[in-house]
Amino acid sequence: MTDRDEHGGRFAYHGLERVIHEKARLGILTSLATNPRGLFFTDLRELCELTDGNLSRHLAALKEAELVLVLRGTSRGRSQTLVKMSARGRERFAEYIEELEKVVSDAMTTEESEEDAGAPWPEGWSPG
Amino acid sequence: MTDRDEHGGRFAYHGLERVIHEKARLGILTSLATNPRGLFFTDLRELCELTDGNLSRHLAALKEAELVLVLRGTSRGRSQTLVKMSARGRERFAEYIEELEKVVSDAMTTEESEEDAGAPWPEGWSPG
Repeated sequence: MTDRDEHGGRFAYHGLERVIHEKARLGILTSLATNPRGLFFTDLRELCELTDGNLSRHLAALKEAELVLVLRGTSRGRSQTLVKMSARGRERFAEYIEELEKVVSDAMTTEESEEDAGAPWPEGWSPG
Repeated sequence: MTDRDEHGGRFAYHGLERVIHEKARLGILTSLATNPRGLFFTDLRELCELTDGNLSRHLAALKEAELVLVLRGTSRGRSQTLVKMSARGRERFAEYIEELEKVVSDAMTTEESEEDAGAPWPEGWSPG
């Protein structure tokens, strides 16, 4: 049990902002959070194991939400795309991670009462 | 930095199983993990702040994936639906939460190098 009451919405997790929560985007943002100077599109693609098309699509959504900055330029004689988390992105990602920590912490309360998990169904109940 | 190498797929988070990762379902499963004896549909609806329709839809997906058990019966003279995590559900939820802890841990490495975040763009780069 945590120190929060078991009131309505106790497990609603409103802080898990959908634009960040999507699995691939969560990987992209964590990569960028860990690399604050930014990452090339090609590196990001490898780190997150995404196709060009998928990465482009997710970056468009993140850029639309103003969570990342996308710049084009030249590096080592080649045209490159550099992606970096915005200040707004860092702030909202930090809030998201805070909520994620609550989920992990809440989920951890399971172990204490795991013996209850194998308890039989009440008499007269049937699969619905 | 963590003790893992920065190789391909470092931030792919394959363990974030999609059927569990969906925001509302994550709330439902965390509720059930915290209440191993099961929860009535009506209580689950309040705890997760979901409509009847949304909760039904998500429970159908979780039942299809064999992560929860749904039983119908009578309690205090009223027809009720009781929902409980399955043994398989507990196992896969534990694996999911383990991966979620990695995300939180990875995201935490940000703070050490936050000063880099405000670094200017390389000369000659422009918004793409």
